[in-house]
Amino acid sequence: MTDTARGTARRYGSRPTMKDVASRAGVGLKTVSRVVNGEPGVTPDTERRVQEAITALGFRRNDSARILRKGRTASIGLVLEDLADPFYGPLCRAVEEVARSHGALLINGSSAEDPAREQELVLALCARRVDGLVVIPAGDDHRYLEPEIAAGVATVFVDRPAGQVDADVVLSDNFGGAQDAVAHLIAHGHRRIGFVGDQPRIHTAMERLRGYRAAMAAAGLPVDESWVSLGATDPERVRSAATAMLDGPEPVTALFAGNNRVTVTVVRVLGERPQPVALVGFDDFELADLVRPAITVVAQDAARLGRTAAGLLFRRLDGIADPPRRVELPTRLIARGSGEIPPYEG
Amino acid sequence: MTDTARGTARRYGSRPTMKDVASRAGVGLKTVSRVVNGEPGVTPDTERRVQEAITALGFRRNDSARILRKGRTASIGLVLEDLADPFYGPLCRAVEEVARSHGALLINGSSAEDPAREQELVLALCARRVDGLVVIPAGDDHRYLEPEIAAGVATVFVDRPAGQVDADVVLSDNFGGAQDAVAHLIAHGHRRIGFVGDQPRIHTAMERLRGYRAAMAAAGLPVDESWVSLGATDPERVRSAATAMLDGPEPVTALFAGNNRVTVTVVRVLGERPQPVALVGFDDFELADLVRPAITVVAQDAARLGRTAAGLLFRRLDGIADPPRRVELPTRLIARGSGEIPPYEG
Repeated sequence: MTDTARGTARRYGSRPTMKDVASRAGVGLKTVSRVVNGEPGVTPDTERRVQEAITALGFRRNDSARILRKGRTASIGLVLEDLADPFYGPLCRAVEEVARSHGALLINGSSAEDPAREQELVLALCARRVDGLVVIPAGDDHRYLEPEIAAGVATVFVDRPAGQVDADVVLSDNFGGAQDAVAHLIAHGHRRIGFVGDQPRIHTAMERLRGYRAAMAAAGLPVDESWVSLGATDPERVRSAATAMLDGPEPVTALFAGNNRVTVTVVRVLGERPQPVALVGFDDFELADLVRPAITVVAQDAARLGRTAAGLLFRRLDGIADPPRRVELPTRLIARGSGEIPPYEG
Repeated sequence: MTDTARGTARRYGSRPTMKDVASRAGVGLKTVSRVVNGEPGVTPDTERRVQEAITALGFRRNDSARILRKGRTASIGLVLEDLADPFYGPLCRAVEEVARSHGALLINGSSAEDPAREQELVLALCARRVDGLVVIPAGDDHRYLEPEIAAGVATVFVDRPAGQVDADVVLSDNFGGAQDAVAHLIAHGHRRIGFVGDQPRIHTAMERLRGYRAAMAAAGLPVDESWVSLGATDPERVRSAATAMLDGPEPVTALFAGNNRVTVTVVRVLGERPQPVALVGFDDFELADLVRPAITVVAQDAARLGRTAAGLLFRRLDGIADPPRRVELPTRLIARGSGEIPPYEG
C-alpha cells in the first residue's frame, strides 16, 4: 500500500470500488473489469497500471456479495505458525469452539514461521471471504492487512503482537513468566543458568530472554554470554547449544528452555548426562509429569489465549468499534521436580 | 443428490450450469440468477423450486472463474478430525509441505468427529474454491461429495476410508498393526489381555479390535467380553474402562491401548497401580521413550500418510483419471519396555 493510498481517509467498512481503480489508473471501467476477470484485450502496459492501482487502493473483488446468500456459512480464519507444534492444538480448538458457538466455521492455515507465507495465506483467506481473522504472526510488519481491516475484516492477533497496525492483541506474560522461571532456579541455589531460546526475530523469544536477564540482574548475578543461545528449535541446534553450556568453561548448573520444542530436546540431553542438571521449561506439555524427573514448567493457558482472541474477534464482528485492546494473560509456574534439583557440586 | 441426478451421465469435470438449473426448475435464466445472487423479485415457491434444482444438480457458483486470475493462489483443503490430537500434526504438516512444493496453499478445518460438521466444512471449502480436498472422514456416507467430485474437485481420503463414494484412500494397516501388538504381548506370556479402544463407529477402532481378536484366536486364547471396551477417548472413560479390566473377576495382566489418546491415560492409570501391568499402545507419541517404563507402541507413519495422500491428490489435479487407488501403509512395532513386562503372578 502506498503512502498516498494510506493517506486517503476512508470510512471504516467502505471498500474501494472498481470505479476508484479505473479513476486512479486513468482507464475506463470496462478495462478494469477485463483485467480483474482475466479477459483478453488489454495491453500489458495498461494491465500493469490497473494492477498497480488495485494494489495501491487495496481493491479486492467482493465475491461474498455474489456467493449464494441462503445457506452461506459464516467463517473465520486462523493463521498459525506450525501445525505440528502441540502448543497450538488447544489454542486452535478453543478458537474453533468459540466460532462454533457463533455458528461459524473455522478455517486454518500455517505460515511455517515464514512472513511471506503468512501474508499469502492471510490474503488468500480474505479473498475467500472469511468474516474475520485470528493471526499468530510470523512477520513483524502487518501493514499489508490495512486495506482488509479498513474494509471491515475483523482481525485479532494472538501469542505475538501485530507489527505496525492497530488491532486487538492477546498475549501471555512472557516476560513475567520467564522471570518466574529463572527466579525459581535462583531460589534453588543456582548461579550459573543457561537460556536456550527460539529465534531472535520472534517476539516471545525476546521477551523470555528479557525476563531471564531481569531475574539474573535482580539477584545480582552476572550473565556470561556463553549461557544464552537463541536459534531454531530443531533437535540438532538445541542439543548442541545445551551441550556447549553444560561443557563450557563456565558450565551452567541449570537450564531454562525457551519453549516446549526446546524443552523436549533438553530433557533428552539431560537424561544422558552423568550429573543432575536443573531444568525449567516455558510451556507445559503432555506427559511432563510422567518423565523422571517430572518437568517443572511455566505454563501458558493456550486454550484461554484462543478463547480470548476469538471472543474479541466476535465482539468486533458484532460491530463493536472501540479502540483496539491489548490483553495479557498470566503464566503459572508448576513445580514438578526438575526445577528443584540443587546445583551439582562436582 | 437425488437418484435422478445421479443417473444423469455427466462428463468428468463438467459442471452443471445455470441453464441446466433453469431448465430443471422450469424457470427463466434471469430467475435462477436472481436466486443465486440473493436478489429480490422471486416468489418463495419459485425460489424453493430453483433451490431444489440447484441441490439436485449439484450446481455451485463457479467463483473461481471470476477470482482475479493473476496472482490467484491454488489451494487445497484438509478436513481432519481433531486439531488438538498430536497424531494429526505430522500428517497436516506433510500435506502442507507437498502442497507448498506444488505452489499451493493448505487450508484446514476440523470436524471434531461430527459427520454433519464434516459435511458442512467440506462444502464450505468447496464453495471457497479449493482445487482439491484431503479428508479424514468423521462420517461414513460421503455421497454428498459426489457432485463436487463429478465437477472435478479432486478428493483423497486418508486415515479412514470413504463411505459410499469411489475415491483414492490412504490407510494404515490397522488390522495388522493391532495383531502385531497383541501377538507381542502373547509372546511375552500374557493370556488375559484387555483392549481399550475408540468409538465403535470409527473405522480404525473396529479394525484394531478385529486385529486384537484375530491375534487372540490365532493363539487359541478366549476373549472375555469384560476385556473389550470401546468408547470416547476422554480420560474419565478410559480410566474407568482400564480400571474395570484390571480389577474385574478375570483381571487382565496386559493392556492394548487403541490410540495415543487412550495410551496417555492408561500410562497414568498404570503408574498408580502397585503391580506391574504390560502395555502396548497404538500410535507413537512424543516422549514415549522417556516415560518409565518407556512405552512399547505400534507406530503409524503419520507423515507418510499425509505425504502419500497429498501426492495422490496432486496426481489427480495433474489430470490423471485412472480408477481410484487404495494404499495401505505398514505399521511398525517399537519395543521400549512396557510391552515386555511379564504377567504379574499375584
